[in-house]
Formats: sequence, structure tokens, C-alpha cells
Amino acid sequence: MEERPRRDFSRLCIHTITTRPWSLERAVEAYSRAGVAGISVWRFSLEGRNPRQAGRMIREAGLRIVSLVRGGFFPALEEAGRRKAVEENRRIIAEAHELGAPLIVLVCGAVPGQSLEESRRQIREGIAAVLPEAREAEVRLAVEPLHPMYADSRSAINTMRQANEVCDELDSPCLGVAVDVYHLWWDPDLEREIARCGARGRIFAFHLCDWRTPTEDLLNDRALMGEGCIPIRRIRRWVEAAGFSGFNEVEIFSDRRWAQDQETFLKEILAAYLKAS
Amino acid sequence: MEERPRRDFSRLCIHTITTRPWSLERAVEAYSRAGVAGISVWRFSLEGRNPRQAGRMIREAGLRIVSLVRGGFFPALEEAGRRKAVEENRRIIAEAHELGAPLIVLVCGAVPGQSLEESRRQIREGIAAVLPEAREAEVRLAVEPLHPMYADSRSAINTMRQANEVCDELDSPCLGVAVDVYHLWWDPDLEREIARCGARGRIFAFHLCDWRTPTEDLLNDRALMGEGCIPIRRIRRWVEAAGFSGFNEVEIFSDRRWAQDQETFLKEILAAYLKAS
Repeated sequence: MEERPRRDFSRLCIHTITTRPWSLERAVEAYSRAGVAGISVWRFSLEGRNPRQAGRMIREAGLRIVSLVRGGFFPALEEAGRRKAVEENRRIIAEAHELGAPLIVLVCGAVPGQSLEESRRQIREGIAAVLPEAREAEVRLAVEPLHPMYADSRSAINTMRQANEVCDELDSPCLGVAVDVYHLWWDPDLEREIARCGARGRIFAFHLCDWRTPTEDLLNDRALMGEGCIPIRRIRRWVEAAGFSGFNEVEIFSDRRWAQDQETFLKEILAAYLKAS
Repeated sequence: MEERPRRDFSRLCIHTITTRPWSLERAVEAYSRAGVAGISVWRFSLEGRNPRQAGRMIREAGLRIVSLVRGGFFPALEEAGRRKAVEENRRIIAEAHELGAPLIVLVCGAVPGQSLEESRRQIREGIAAVLPEAREAEVRLAVEPLHPMYADSRSAINTMRQANEVCDELDSPCLGVAVDVYHLWWDPDLEREIARCGARGRIFAFHLCDWRTPTEDLLNDRALMGEGCIPIRRIRRWVEAAGFSGFNEVEIFSDRRWAQDQETFLKEILAAYLKAS
């Protein structure tokens, strides 16, 4: 099966963190003017704003809200910490509901020195605790597997198989997976586990960027599609073959890109989306 | 099964890169004086030296040579590049033989933009091409799986399972695996795949260091045992339960440690080895 060529921006979504120097208002105006169809809103972009009004402003600009980023971080050494995380995630679900975001991306969390198995148990427990609120608010939750270089402190879910296992265990139509090519491109079971995920209708999001060689920072040196070594089109083909037809979300953390003129960067994103994703 | 407490340094080996500012002669003198039993020699430590004489000098100081580090880097876009890599690995095998090192650690290689499957095929082909020379020289080869953050350019072998698959396919008593806790601690199948590896007598080496939070450099911010989040003793228990009884090798790449007084660092290594590994 060949990759379908991109023809327009009708499935393109951009994460507000990608153009981090811009305020939410500035990003909405620029994305909308460029013909971008969707936006994923990072919580820092909502600071000092009423989520309901922000949601209305985004929709009036003609943009679809794809997701609120991000919830999660469930594990903690003490029970009080885990309870606090559950409360925080309930607040995030309410915020997503007010904003009108149909999906929350979960960076599940990990605690340095706590076993990954115990963190995964706490992740399942935390998600289970907030699923009733998510259902009630009609907000879906997407477990995002994170690259193993984040297993110390950001997520104990590091492969597609592990994300599928969490979804199998909790088995809820509200719970699925966010496939991010940056985190998963190396995963030897990726094709098989994407197919397994898709067969259950559980691919809720698809995130794009690229892996630069050499990568100079563990967090903020991600690249624009086509600048790195990730076989993005091949992974897109797997995701689409598994039934996913949602937005393709550009999510790039990059100190060098944030230092650049963001209007120019936006043009480069559009070109890279058509050419290399 | 409980971890056996360390009682002495009879199974401790140090990699010359760990105390990188020291010349080979200085490292041999200091390790020997400290009662360290083994040394793994990095090739840069041999520059400008005759390997045969270097080997004799090390043995006369009472140290066992555990391995020569490192061979590998088999994949290349062009066939000429792959042929060159095979020739280079034959030279390394000859060097190990002259030095008197019974083992070469293989960092298998990867090429940015070439599929990981193709790189793995080229790795198998490259190892197969040099196995006759290794057998002849009585030098064993250890495939070292590298952390997925090195999948772009350093190794397409990123899990214990993948290392086992290479060994299964080539099936030679000269070919095994180097288990490095830094690269593998996050691997969800680690316990099972270590057992599988051990059952075939294929664990040829066991490398120690720790994962710092936050890690500030992808290559040279590794930590001393006990300074990070890796469950080192648990992994040692798995390796020993699988039948491994060889050296435990301290291999730390650390800009901050290399900037320190190396005599003090060596004392800290000895203490950390007893206390946290």
C-alpha cells in the first residue's frame, strides 16, 4: 500500500507548544490564516484565560480543537501524591470539557527509583479513578507511550505494546492511545501493535516530528518532518491501515525553532507537512 | 533469590574510558594498586602502543584483560562502506588476539535514514563475515544492545530480544551478548530475555553504571552506581540466575567525572561497587 500524498491542510493540526513563543490568540490567528484545520491546546496556553471563552474564540476562528495537552503523571511514592494527581486530572477533564476538547493526551508519569512495574500499576489505578469523570464529560483519554529515554521520570509506558496492555486491562471506549513517531519509531513491534490498537478502534491521536542526528538535548531538540531519520510516511501508512483517519498533529519541542521567527517556521511546517509526512 | 553482597573486588573490572584522562599505563597502575581485578581496554588507550607489549604490561601488573572495546559499526549505505567495516573488524580481532583480550564488545551500528531492519540485516552479514577470524583467533564477540536513543546512528540493536535474535540466527559459540544496565534497564522483556540468553551460555559481559535524573547529555552524562534510577542489583540477580559468573564491568561516560580528580573518582567507584551494585 502506497502512502497517500497530502493534498491540503484539512487533516493538519498544530500543537500550541510547537510555536511556543506565540500566545494562544496569536497562534489561533496565524494557524487559521494559514489554512491549518486543527489545534491541540497545551495547558500553558490557557493560563490566565477562561477555557470556555478560549474554546469559543478558537472555534470562531474556524479551527477544530483536537486535544488538550496534557494530563497524567499519576505515579508518586506516597499515596497523598497519587490522590493529588487524580484530583489534578479531574480538573484537567473539566477544563477539556469547558474548552470543548474531545481528547486529553496522557503523559503517564514515572518516579525515579520506583520500579517501572509499580509505576505502571499506579498509572492503571490513576486512569481507572478518572475514567468515570471522562465518560461523564465526554472527553476521551489517550495514553501516549514515551521514548525509553523518559522512563526515569516522565513515563513508565515506553512501547506500543505497553500502551495496548493498559487499554486492554481498563477496557473503556474512552481510553485509547496517542501514537507519536518521535517516541515510537525504533519500537521493533510497532507495526504489529499499531494494527492491534487500530483493530480495537483505539488510535485516538497521531503526532508528528522528526529525530535529528545528532540530537543535542533530550527534550527540546526535536526536528521538523524530513529533517531526521524517522520513517514518518511508513508509520502513517500503518496507522491509516489500522483505520485511523483523524488529524495529523505537528508537535515539536525545539529550542532552535522557538528562537526563530515563528511566521517563517509556520511556513516551513506547512511545506514539511506536504513534502515529508 | 537475594542479591549476594559484594565482599571484594575480585569480579570488578573497569573500562579505561571510565577514567579517560588517564593513560593506559596510569590506569593500569592505579587499578592494580586499588585491588581491581580486571580491565577492559578501549582502543583509544592503545594508540601509539604495541598491543602485544601493552597486554604483557597489563598482565604483569596482575590485571585480567576482560575485553577490547569496541568493534562493530557494520551498516553503511554503500557496499564499499560495509566491506571497509568488515576489514576494520578483522583488524580489531587481530588486535584483541595480540593484546590477549578474549572478548570484543560490538556496538553494531546504524545509518540515519536507513531502515532499522536493513541495518540489522547488514549487522548480521557483517558479524557472519568476521566470525571465522574470531574463531581462529579465539576471540569471542559480544553484541551490545544500545539504548533506543542511539538507534539513529549507533546501533539498530536496541533490546535484549534483538540481540538474542542475532545470536540465534548466526548460532556460534563465539557470539554472545553484553548486558549493559544503562542501555537495557527500561526493557520490558529484560528478565525473560536475560534468562533465554543465559540458558544458551551467551551472556559474555555485564556492564554497570547508572541513569541520572535529569540526564543532561545523550552520551556523556552517565552516573556512578547508586546515583541514578537503575535497579542494578535486581538486574545483577537476573544475570547471575542465568548462569553468568564473569566480571562486573564499570563503564561510565561522564564529562563531569572526567573533569574530576581521577584518584578520588576511583575511590568512589570502589565504594559504589560495594554499596550499590
